Amino acid sequence: MIIDENLARQVVQPRQSQSHKGSYGRVLLIGGLYPYGGAIIMAALACVNSGAGLVTVATDKENIPALHAHLPEAMAFDLAEEDRLREQMKSADLILIGPGLGEDQLAQKAFDLVLEQISAQQKLVIDGSALNLLAKKEKVSFLTNQLVLTPHQKEWERLSGLAISEQTDANNQAALRHFPKGTVLVAKSHQTKVLQGDLLGELRVGGPYQATGGMGDTLAGIIAGFLAQFQSGNFETVAAATYLHSAIADELAQEAYVVLPTKISAELPKVMAKLSNTLLKLK
Amino acid sequence: MIIDENLARQVVQPRQSQSHKGSYGRVLLIGGLYPYGGAIIMAALACVNSGAGLVTVATDKENIPALHAHLPEAMAFDLAEEDRLREQMKSADLILIGPGLGEDQLAQKAFDLVLEQISAQQKLVIDGSALNLLAKKEKVSFLTNQLVLTPHQKEWERLSGLAISEQTDANNQAALRHFPKGTVLVAKSHQTKVLQGDLLGELRVGGPYQATGGMGDTLAGIIAGFLAQFQSGNFETVAAATYLHSAIADELAQEAYVVLPTKISAELPKVMAKLSNTLLKLK
Amino acid sequence: MIIDENLARQVVQPRQSQSHKGSYGRVLLIGGLYPYGGAIIMAALACVNSGAGLVTVATDKENIPALHAHLPEAMAFDLAEEDRLREQMKSADLILIGPGLGEDQLAQKAFDLVLEQISAQQKLVIDGSALNLLAKKEKVSFLTNQLVLTPHQKEWERLSGLAISEQTDANNQAALRHFPKGTVLVAKSHQTKVLQGDLLGELRVGGPYQATGGMGDTLAGIIAGFLAQFQSGNFETVAAATYLHSAIADELAQEAYVVLPTKISAELPKVMAKLSNTLLKLK
Amino acid sequence: MIIDENLARQVVQPRQSQSHKGSYGRVLLIGGLYPYGGAIIMAALACVNSGAGLVTVATDKENIPALHAHLPEAMAFDLAEEDRLREQMKSADLILIGPGLGEDQLAQKAFDLVLEQISAQQKLVIDGSALNLLAKKEKVSFLTNQLVLTPHQKEWERLSGLAISEQTDANNQAALRHFPKGTVLVAKSHQTKVLQGDLLGELRVGGPYQATGGMGDTLAGIIAGFLAQFQSGNFETVAAATYLHSAIADELAQEAYVVLPTKISAELPKVMAKLSNTLLKLK
Repeated sequence: MIIDENLARQVVQPRQSQSHKGSYGRVLLIGGLYPYGGAIIMAALACVNSGAGLVTVATDKENIPALHAHLPEAMAFDLAEEDRLREQMKSADLILIGPGLGEDQLAQKAFDLVLEQISAQQKLVIDGSALNLLAKKEKVSFLTNQLVLTPHQKEWERLSGLAISEQTDANNQAALRHFPKGTVLVAKSHQTKVLQGDLLGELRVGGPYQATGGMGDTLAGIIAGFLAQFQSGNFETVAAATYLHSAIADELAQEAYVVLPTKISAELPKVMAKLSNTLLKLK
Repeated sequence: MIIDENLARQVVQPRQSQSHKGSYGRVLLIGGLYPYGGAIIMAALACVNSGAGLVTVATDKENIPALHAHLPEAMAFDLAEEDRLREQMKSADLILIGPGLGEDQLAQKAFDLVLEQISAQQKLVIDGSALNLLAKKEKVSFLTNQLVLTPHQKEWERLSGLAISEQTDANNQAALRHFPKGTVLVAKSHQTKVLQGDLLGELRVGGPYQATGGMGDTLAGIIAGFLAQFQSGNFETVAAATYLHSAIADELAQEAYVVLPTKISAELPKVMAKLSNTLLKLK
Repeated sequence: MIIDENLARQVVQPRQSQSHKGSYGRVLLIGGLYPYGGAIIMAALACVNSGAGLVTVATDKENIPALHAHLPEAMAFDLAEEDRLREQMKSADLILIGPGLGEDQLAQKAFDLVLEQISAQQKLVIDGSALNLLAKKEKVSFLTNQLVLTPHQKEWERLSGLAISEQTDANNQAALRHFPKGTVLVAKSHQTKVLQGDLLGELRVGGPYQATGGMGDTLAGIIAGFLAQFQSGNFETVAAATYLHSAIADELAQEAYVVLPTKISAELPKVMAKLSNTLLKLK
Repeated sequence: MIIDENLARQVVQPRQSQSHKGSYGRVLLIGGLYPYGGAIIMAALACVNSGAGLVTVATDKENIPALHAHLPEAMAFDLAEEDRLREQMKSADLILIGPGLGEDQLAQKAFDLVLEQISAQQKLVIDGSALNLLAKKEKVSFLTNQLVLTPHQKEWERLSGLAISEQTDANNQAALRHFPKGTVLVAKSHQTKVLQGDLLGELRVGGPYQATGGMGDTLAGIIAGFLAQFQSGNFETVAAATYLHSAIADELAQEAYVVLPTKISAELPKVMAKLSNTLLKLK
């Protein structure tokens, strides 16, 4: 199937008037360790602008001023504080781990803690270097089947064992069966696809103006924000997020040779307002 | 009564030409302790943009660069400096305590100091976690009756003892009698009400696009800014601030699925210019 | 005389094509000590946007990230580094001392150093708390007569000994004679005047929307930027800077109840482009 | 030859749809040491906005929050970490060293490391104080001939031994023969020229509104970004970057007395979109 505006429109529903922050999810974002601080800032900008109810960021303490310079709307704490991390993980509806996480000892410790503590009610998005950490593990028993993986081709190679030339739809679907049932795979490339079980969605939006640092961090943040608040199935929700990320880039590329990731996040509220209004066309 | 644009228009008066910064109040904002630094940044943005004359922020020293990255217009100091805190409290016309304050030892100490030092001439707005600190106290003798409380339903439950289902207008009015005469209650919910003695105002503006982190911090900042500068009674002034906060959100929601709190603050000067100009309609 | 757009137009001349950064002056701004870091940020924004060639800021080391978050265009160093301060003072065409300087030991030391080291070729603008430091001194021998003082009424009272009610034009002119010949006084009030010897200029622009923290820091920065680059006499140049600061505020106040100082700085390049273009009217 | 829009149009080609970040180059920017932190921020803004695929900044650790406040899109690390520097240098397609580098011990060490480690496949842009460090060396054997030098007149005097009055085209071409064949010289003045061997390009755009701090840092960043991604020869690519930098300034100067360097960077994506679209004229 082609992932298109109609699908996005089904997912991005108008908000109910009797609701509060909690209705739109508590999201915990983990990453941005030195020297990758900017990555989690971009994920957080994407997540807050996509409408998540409450966004908390676990990162390097030194990274917090820059995060707050962009986004006072997010709470932020030092990832090295293990007690606080455990506590925040408990209250989260969704955890996104990976943007700018790196693979050092603190990163590994945080990733292990997430795998140990995650519960069946919680959604888990694994992105960026956390996918490499996952690839290094011999065997993982996932405690949630609400799992989303967002690898680019090289990360997927490490994780699935499939060389890039072998990453066909059929092979990807087969490899995905090694993960819990219901796991959603966002196979990122210049022709990104979204897979879950036998479901296969293909993007027809996006372009080379998106080939710049931070694009994936921003996508991960939108996916997290959408999963935290929308009631559609995980496949549809992730597909809609992936669609919007690139559809906005297409729109911005009318007037931009390269589309900066933070510009996509800034457009989200406006585009989602159009999407959720049945009377308006996106373009 | 319905809190509407007419009431806001009565409160937001044109400024007198022979005036100076001091004419529009000295405000002290206390909060933003780790890991909630962003909250006091949002309150300060709201307060300065609402027109307060001089805004000073007491927060974590580490939070000051991010605050100044948004708002060099505010002075800022380390809340842990008790002498400076005492001195700043003396010169303030209004103190707002609570946004991102938390409940740790430093937070408690600051809150106790405020309760001890506040004088009858000074206005006091208690918000966020400071409401929880207040709820924990056995008995408080308030030294000012220029008091404003801005709880959401859960905070009001802790403070009043009323379960959320019991928070009717009548019960809320009764509970309010335990506070000094003249205390204004902003009972925040999806149908926010403002109460003082027998006065009861109801908001008909606002919507679920406001259900995002930092919305309450921004409201507290506007309330503080309005009380510091306007001459109407506290009920009317708080009601006008509460109205404007949500009316701006409604306006922005025409083109935004979620309305970020900092966007509301950025609109304040423009909307207040329209309000104070008798020839212009707000919409 | 009334300070008006014509005077500003005479001062703000089109730039010569064969010129470089040095042609527009090297400015050293000193201030922004804790807890007043934002003040020097606002002065620097004003100075750079007014067209000064090279702007260097001496402030608290902790204040530099917030300054650079606004303005990477300015160089910045730790005021506590005395050797660097001496060296930077030597290469400056103009020194502005005072915005957010405070009156502590480091502030006093820096102020004394400026008074000792300033040379006849260098211009010196004394603003804010540096005026209080000056008022405390028994006797000062100024080594430059290119001096500008920018007190508000209370600061001028401390400096001149004139109570606010005594600050008539005649008394101000008399008090100004105690300073080196050529000293320009910007007597800030809701009816700001600029004085030098027998010259007396009066502002007819500006309004109460300017009554907010940081307005004076911004004015000081524009004055510094203008004196560093324009060839008119110091009276005319300071008058033009003072005019533009308030004329821009008037313009912005059409759509803003309160005019934030940083908004004035952001408008400077546009308004100055109009001014220097003989074909365009400012309004 | 005159460097004009046609040349820029030949260089700025539409992106290929089957591409990824790596297709547009990995750039390492070295500089921004205290007290010049802002310089590398401006270079990075220019480089990312020009479309470079992946930009990494080596600077003072204290400078990273301000960099990320502007640009989370860039990775950033402490220049003092020699191991990381060596590793990042290996994976870079292009290294730009100099904006705000200064000449202290750390700066020298980094510069020496670059000269030692650079390989024939890597491009090297030497700017700002790194040109002074180069001038101090007795003899340098360059390991790459993909070299670009971007001196202003005083830096070129130190490097070439030519007094400013002697910097004629012929003398500059002769002096350039002491550098590896293929070296591109950007001789910056109010009439900037680009030289390589016998090729000589002259700018007819740009003006005195560019005479402000940071203009050269921004130019260096654009040159780095262009060289990292475009396939034209180095002369044409550098000439196009230099052209665009000043052509954008001309455009902005229609409404700005002084053009801030960061404003030029912000315009790059839009202007490059027009350039690469054969149907659109730039003006």
